[in-house]
Amino acid sequence: MAFFDLPLDTLRTYRPDVSTPADFAAFWEDTLEEARAFPLDARFEEVDYGLRGLKTYDVTFRGYGGQAIKGWLLQPRNAAGASPCVVEFIGYGGGRGLPTDWLTYASAGYAHLVMDTRGQGSVWRRGDTPDLAPDGDNPQHPGFMTRGIRRPQTYYYRRVFTDGVRAVEAARSAPGVDPSRVAVAGGSQGGGITLAVAGLVQDVSALLPDVPFLCQFRRASEITNAAPYSELTGYLRIHREAVEDVFSTLAYFDGLNFAPRVQAPALFSVGLMDEVCPPSTVFAAYNRLPGEKDIRVYAYSGHEAGEGVHVPERLRFLSRLPGWSP
Amino acid sequence: MAFFDLPLDTLRTYRPDVSTPADFAAFWEDTLEEARAFPLDARFEEVDYGLRGLKTYDVTFRGYGGQAIKGWLLQPRNAAGASPCVVEFIGYGGGRGLPTDWLTYASAGYAHLVMDTRGQGSVWRRGDTPDLAPDGDNPQHPGFMTRGIRRPQTYYYRRVFTDGVRAVEAARSAPGVDPSRVAVAGGSQGGGITLAVAGLVQDVSALLPDVPFLCQFRRASEITNAAPYSELTGYLRIHREAVEDVFSTLAYFDGLNFAPRVQAPALFSVGLMDEVCPPSTVFAAYNRLPGEKDIRVYAYSGHEAGEGVHVPERLRFLSRLPGWSP
Amino acid sequence: MAFFDLPLDTLRTYRPDVSTPADFAAFWEDTLEEARAFPLDARFEEVDYGLRGLKTYDVTFRGYGGQAIKGWLLQPRNAAGASPCVVEFIGYGGGRGLPTDWLTYASAGYAHLVMDTRGQGSVWRRGDTPDLAPDGDNPQHPGFMTRGIRRPQTYYYRRVFTDGVRAVEAARSAPGVDPSRVAVAGGSQGGGITLAVAGLVQDVSALLPDVPFLCQFRRASEITNAAPYSELTGYLRIHREAVEDVFSTLAYFDGLNFAPRVQAPALFSVGLMDEVCPPSTVFAAYNRLPGEKDIRVYAYSGHEAGEGVHVPERLRFLSRLPGWSP
Amino acid sequence: MAFFDLPLDTLRTYRPDVSTPADFAAFWEDTLEEARAFPLDARFEEVDYGLRGLKTYDVTFRGYGGQAIKGWLLQPRNAAGASPCVVEFIGYGGGRGLPTDWLTYASAGYAHLVMDTRGQGSVWRRGDTPDLAPDGDNPQHPGFMTRGIRRPQTYYYRRVFTDGVRAVEAARSAPGVDPSRVAVAGGSQGGGITLAVAGLVQDVSALLPDVPFLCQFRRASEITNAAPYSELTGYLRIHREAVEDVFSTLAYFDGLNFAPRVQAPALFSVGLMDEVCPPSTVFAAYNRLPGEKDIRVYAYSGHEAGEGVHVPERLRFLSRLPGWSP
Amino acid sequence: MAFFDLPLDTLRTYRPDVSTPADFAAFWEDTLEEARAFPLDARFEEVDYGLRGLKTYDVTFRGYGGQAIKGWLLQPRNAAGASPCVVEFIGYGGGRGLPTDWLTYASAGYAHLVMDTRGQGSVWRRGDTPDLAPDGDNPQHPGFMTRGIRRPQTYYYRRVFTDGVRAVEAARSAPGVDPSRVAVAGGSQGGGITLAVAGLVQDVSALLPDVPFLCQFRRASEITNAAPYSELTGYLRIHREAVEDVFSTLAYFDGLNFAPRVQAPALFSVGLMDEVCPPSTVFAAYNRLPGEKDIRVYAYSGHEAGEGVHVPERLRFLSRLPGWSP
Amino acid sequence: MAFFDLPLDTLRTYRPDVSTPADFAAFWEDTLEEARAFPLDARFEEVDYGLRGLKTYDVTFRGYGGQAIKGWLLQPRNAAGASPCVVEFIGYGGGRGLPTDWLTYASAGYAHLVMDTRGQGSVWRRGDTPDLAPDGDNPQHPGFMTRGIRRPQTYYYRRVFTDGVRAVEAARSAPGVDPSRVAVAGGSQGGGITLAVAGLVQDVSALLPDVPFLCQFRRASEITNAAPYSELTGYLRIHREAVEDVFSTLAYFDGLNFAPRVQAPALFSVGLMDEVCPPSTVFAAYNRLPGEKDIRVYAYSGHEAGEGVHVPERLRFLSRLPGWSP
Repeated sequence: MAFFDLPLDTLRTYRPDVSTPADFAAFWEDTLEEARAFPLDARFEEVDYGLRGLKTYDVTFRGYGGQAIKGWLLQPRNAAGASPCVVEFIGYGGGRGLPTDWLTYASAGYAHLVMDTRGQGSVWRRGDTPDLAPDGDNPQHPGFMTRGIRRPQTYYYRRVFTDGVRAVEAARSAPGVDPSRVAVAGGSQGGGITLAVAGLVQDVSALLPDVPFLCQFRRASEITNAAPYSELTGYLRIHREAVEDVFSTLAYFDGLNFAPRVQAPALFSVGLMDEVCPPSTVFAAYNRLPGEKDIRVYAYSGHEAGEGVHVPERLRFLSRLPGWSP
Repeated sequence: MAFFDLPLDTLRTYRPDVSTPADFAAFWEDTLEEARAFPLDARFEEVDYGLRGLKTYDVTFRGYGGQAIKGWLLQPRNAAGASPCVVEFIGYGGGRGLPTDWLTYASAGYAHLVMDTRGQGSVWRRGDTPDLAPDGDNPQHPGFMTRGIRRPQTYYYRRVFTDGVRAVEAARSAPGVDPSRVAVAGGSQGGGITLAVAGLVQDVSALLPDVPFLCQFRRASEITNAAPYSELTGYLRIHREAVEDVFSTLAYFDGLNFAPRVQAPALFSVGLMDEVCPPSTVFAAYNRLPGEKDIRVYAYSGHEAGEGVHVPERLRFLSRLPGWSP
Repeated sequence: MAFFDLPLDTLRTYRPDVSTPADFAAFWEDTLEEARAFPLDARFEEVDYGLRGLKTYDVTFRGYGGQAIKGWLLQPRNAAGASPCVVEFIGYGGGRGLPTDWLTYASAGYAHLVMDTRGQGSVWRRGDTPDLAPDGDNPQHPGFMTRGIRRPQTYYYRRVFTDGVRAVEAARSAPGVDPSRVAVAGGSQGGGITLAVAGLVQDVSALLPDVPFLCQFRRASEITNAAPYSELTGYLRIHREAVEDVFSTLAYFDGLNFAPRVQAPALFSVGLMDEVCPPSTVFAAYNRLPGEKDIRVYAYSGHEAGEGVHVPERLRFLSRLPGWSP
Repeated sequence: MAFFDLPLDTLRTYRPDVSTPADFAAFWEDTLEEARAFPLDARFEEVDYGLRGLKTYDVTFRGYGGQAIKGWLLQPRNAAGASPCVVEFIGYGGGRGLPTDWLTYASAGYAHLVMDTRGQGSVWRRGDTPDLAPDGDNPQHPGFMTRGIRRPQTYYYRRVFTDGVRAVEAARSAPGVDPSRVAVAGGSQGGGITLAVAGLVQDVSALLPDVPFLCQFRRASEITNAAPYSELTGYLRIHREAVEDVFSTLAYFDGLNFAPRVQAPALFSVGLMDEVCPPSTVFAAYNRLPGEKDIRVYAYSGHEAGEGVHVPERLRFLSRLPGWSP
Repeated sequence: MAFFDLPLDTLRTYRPDVSTPADFAAFWEDTLEEARAFPLDARFEEVDYGLRGLKTYDVTFRGYGGQAIKGWLLQPRNAAGASPCVVEFIGYGGGRGLPTDWLTYASAGYAHLVMDTRGQGSVWRRGDTPDLAPDGDNPQHPGFMTRGIRRPQTYYYRRVFTDGVRAVEAARSAPGVDPSRVAVAGGSQGGGITLAVAGLVQDVSALLPDVPFLCQFRRASEITNAAPYSELTGYLRIHREAVEDVFSTLAYFDGLNFAPRVQAPALFSVGLMDEVCPPSTVFAAYNRLPGEKDIRVYAYSGHEAGEGVHVPERLRFLSRLPGWSP
Repeated sequence: MAFFDLPLDTLRTYRPDVSTPADFAAFWEDTLEEARAFPLDARFEEVDYGLRGLKTYDVTFRGYGGQAIKGWLLQPRNAAGASPCVVEFIGYGGGRGLPTDWLTYASAGYAHLVMDTRGQGSVWRRGDTPDLAPDGDNPQHPGFMTRGIRRPQTYYYRRVFTDGVRAVEAARSAPGVDPSRVAVAGGSQGGGITLAVAGLVQDVSALLPDVPFLCQFRRASEITNAAPYSELTGYLRIHREAVEDVFSTLAYFDGLNFAPRVQAPALFSVGLMDEVCPPSTVFAAYNRLPGEKDIRVYAYSGHEAGEGVHVPERLRFLSRLPGWSP
């Protein structure tokens, strides 16, 4: 995979023009208020998957529209007192799978809540949460990117980001979790959700978005053929008249518009050969973060970026947060 | 494309075992009864797309769950009296597009109602009808094949086939259409819908399914890698525990179970190199039709089968139906 | 499909250097004179393909070298008086197929003559006209792009463009056609022929080239790998010594050299993600048209550009031509 | 490449039914008689490409229709007396290239005449001989397989096989060649021509067809997707009505019909993973040879079969022919 | 991915002929004796990768030829007494990566030793162990499958399997490990090594090979094109004379020859659409195990088989071994 | 294949910054001195492959580490006196094959020594020389590019280039060869070795590198996805920490660092669409040659560049060297 995007020097200072809807903040305040009209109703049922060193819970809480969202909570079995907690969002197409898929943060001594992504989880890891669209829909390109995309009110990620905010609330209410120490994390789509949630829940302890998706949609649709941004291209190839509508909707969901609202310290990662989430779209978001931040650049990597090598980077970053070391 | 399925001689007499749910008839009676509880509310609004030789209508009627389903109606401008009408269903991924896409039957002197396929129409021709799932859903593989597939009540094609039945009713109520002379037609997914509707509305004048999809799902999932049957394989690869559930659901939607209920004369077509709808799955349905029938075999064709060459075949077949010639 | 060519702003004013052979006009005058030495001998035999609303003719006329060229003529059955006529040329690899393939213009109230492309019609829609090369040939890359390419006199498109001019003459002599109202149209290769014919027959009523092929050959060979321009690359990869000969020949057939000669009003279309006929090569021709012109830009489209959505655009454009509305 | 055809044991005795036209012999007698009505007019012009150890000639002779066919003749510079000569035919798509491409047989002490394949030589090695079709043609799939395929009289390989027979006659008239010791050889298409020529010129010294093409066309079209047999499939996919015509024509050109006429000793080779010329089609021809014969089986090879490793096998086979050792 | 191998019913009882070298046992006794002439020299250096719940060691021991082999050892931080231990071998192309990659067994309460695979770990997860070939080598196809393949003494897997046996010995000597309770496990290549080691170290507690590679090489080379068996095909395509030598060598390394020697209870898994390690080759090994055994069949899975879903299956299986439950 | 690299005008003067290790010369002096501590021990055993016009020898000499390196020597059978000799190096993945593969230079009247490339020859033409790594190794990406790449002392091409120098020495000691007239040649990897050897053995008569590989590694790894440079990318994607080490090693083997040391006249060739050895990397080396030089530019060619057409170019170039014409 050769370099295809801007050179690293340019990326470091890349600051494209961004269009932020005037009612961006109001849109999200209304959305969250509406969701919070439903009780959170977070439930944690202990389950046994053979992980004797950990405590494992099947999680259910109410997300967008009061719908039931699934997840897992893992934590060290013998934690002394309430633990910091990482809330993790999942990459595109995958679901929560099984508790045995999520051992990193609990092995590092933290609680770990994984949120299922509504509707997803039939492409690479099983999900258990359907996506219902009570506010309407439109014909869609296969996948989730264009569900309800003709209006911000009906767009799929309105529901997902709201679920993400509620997942943080669920984590804060979970047994053994210190509600003042909750970080958000995730890769690709999970990174995009991370960025949005950190913009909406500004008192999280930290955010760790890896190769975040859902950033600078228009440029992405113009420079890469790779899925899932290709769903946008595929939709607009057919719905030729919808180009401006679509990008107007997406402005409410673009990581570039959440980035300036983030207040927590951030650790990003990026792959310079990443055709799925091109590095310019990642830096475009990263460069707009006003606060403390760092980014690991993996030069010869595609969308996998640092993969396993980045895990100790994340653990090191977390251990330096106040109250997160032993 | 080499031959990959059974030889033609075997196909001619291929009759695999079929499992028909005991409550198959009841399931569909209940489903249609429930849909008919909503008024059909068929509306025909004349529109001008520059087709001066034809009359062109934008169609809306109420399908499954009383939801608004779109379509087009075209008919010869100067028809003397009520015309026979062909109701057409569309292949997977496409939508109703524009009236200019549908000139064949009206040029042949018939009325022609094209039904939009709910949710589809963002892959190759634009659709205008969203799919709502009021009875629930499950996580799904991208596409439409696995929407609600865990229960017959929630399965996507329950809604689509119901829309198809209602489309016939809408055609029968349309201006200038002779309600006693309505045939159903379509290719691929449109052929699968055609077969289902002809099994449910037994007094249609004829059915013309080309390379029908949605037949003998299990065999299809085992012998072809091609989309869209691959959506089943993709779903079951992740939802490993769901194999029997899924095929239990699909039995309510399998063309092999609609075929014995068909009473109208039929013209099929099939491509012997068709990896999308393998010829054995087409013959498995065709061979179960109890009545008058014929099939055109295109030996060196894939899923396109006869394409343009098959159009005059269809017109000739229609012109021989009672009351369908000039 | 990402953007790979110049940005739209640049395309709007893109005017590359063009090399026009000094004897370009003479070459074509001689060619046409030579062809007209044969009688046109246009014949129109009525045929029945079940299209009761139309009149359908099997067409034969004499093109280059006096060879028999096939086509179809369709027209509204009940036209009052002579109709305007659209002469249509076909995309690369396809043939005239059947009358049922050509319903648009007749349904809009016009006569419609479709010309078979000599030698083609064995890749996607059947053709019925062989290509003979009475003036000699050279070894060729599979396809038609390099037939006789070593000299302008023997080049394949010399014969095809001549056939196109003769097709206009045939249309003007057809029953029910008003010879003063004949437009030319076609997509891709059909668009390239359209442009050439409109440059050679300057009194056509209009031209409607979609995504025209056969424009700015050298740039095309340098920026795209897609067929059919790839035939040039493939030929030159083997005939390494022939580069200048080949492009000298092609200068006689380049849409950029026909464009300044066009006098009729034009409607173009282009897809900004079109790798088959890159948008710069289309704009390079379009920008050289001296007269009235318009172009529809389909941003997220490849070579399909506007496909069905562009049909009403064409009908609207035609209906505004003098004498073309009802 | 996995095994996809019959197992070796079955191949050894594979004898499919063959349909031989009643007038097969007459067709070829007439064809050759007609070609011989033109003078052979073989010319050998010495050229210098830097091969100081050899004598190199540019060859021209009259083939089918009296057209000029090009070739090269190489021979040892210091041969004592007239040499045996190998006449070689070339694989599909390639041309005669340069004398430096043809050093094997001359380095082994034989004369070597290479025949250009009319029309070919723009895909992988340059050809210099155009193909003219004086008896008519039909629309064709890109490539050479379907040129004139609707009638035996116009089929492309009628011209090529005739050229091949004339090439043997040219070799027999060449300076320094012993006309009683001429063998024919070639791989793939060259192997198919070899087989045909050895059936038509029964007094050649030997034939060495490697992985011969042009054998058992119908089975090939049914079991492989690979080019160039795929040209047949592509043509028949469009010209659906032409299936029987096409295979009737091909019967006059099938290696299985030339095989029983061969009288010279033969050395074949075959690759068991060859999808281009499937091993069953090779054995089907080989098993019909009535005389002395041998075949080298390369089990893990595709169409390359023995490639360089088979060269010494060929030289050893030739050296054992009467009068071919030093 | 369609089914391409034998049907499940046949697989259950599939018992192909196997050729076992007469000196198979002697070959491996000599090999291990030679390796044990070097001191094991197992070292366990505690390292900190942020996994506060576990103890983590960097492992080095001497494998084949006394060469240093790397690995990781993880175990629960607060284990009471010596733990059972799983020794894991890695799939083709990957290396030991980081301790954070290996959390499953330690989270389940067991010690876990992961062995680096010599030479590998530059395709998907980093390895740290070079492969030296002190006994000679041969030219090789890229990859590891054909290293030294011309003689059993020099074959790559002789070194790897010996390393595997030594890894079990290292685990038995590790701090906190109960040497009487050591199981072996791994997927794909790791499954092949597992089978070999369980045949050579008959007193392991259990073996858990998933989709094992290195079984029934000859059939694999004939029915699949997928890597890494394709390396054999690629090698034999060039080294045409080596077919029998190669399969003679491979008989010393075939899981089918280790299977009858296994005495421990086994849990296998297999994917019926697995083209990498075709199901017949897996069942061919499984069906030869004389003792207690079970196999999980994943019907719609390829080489991933049960992936995360199979993890709890493995933990459940282990927890039922004597002394392995809490 | 479109143009993807710099335009030809820029290439002609392209002179990127180059980093040459301070001890570059010393490194190679030490390396060669160490190799020459072993006796050359060149042996030439006459063999018979049926090439009666030539003398053919199986060659063995001692290369790096005193290991036996194989080759072939061919020469005109009846040469009068000692001949000039071309030493040829082979492209990536291929081996020496058979003498029948190497007829060009002997047919032109020269001696010709072909050197087997250690370890290679199992991908496209058989090799007979293993590669042993007595100085150590590292885990490697499949192929040869990353063998021992972590230190210059252990890198694979240290051994290969040393073999190349020794091959020149072997040629100079061969029967019938004039040691003062020895040129070096080769394509792709063979071109890279040619350049290195001509930099290390400055008194060769000439060098003829075609499309040389092993030039400007870092740029190559950034602009092409094609093998074999992709092995570097693949390695660095996994060994993320090794980027600077790897390029530090490669600086000792980069054609750009050998180029300034070359004193003999040179004939290069390059393909402007070559994605394997991008034209900028070839010109970067070519432009640094201080002496007499020429380059053939093949514009529409990929990595094949001039292939057969370039052979007479090479022979003409050689024939103009002092003492190389007859």
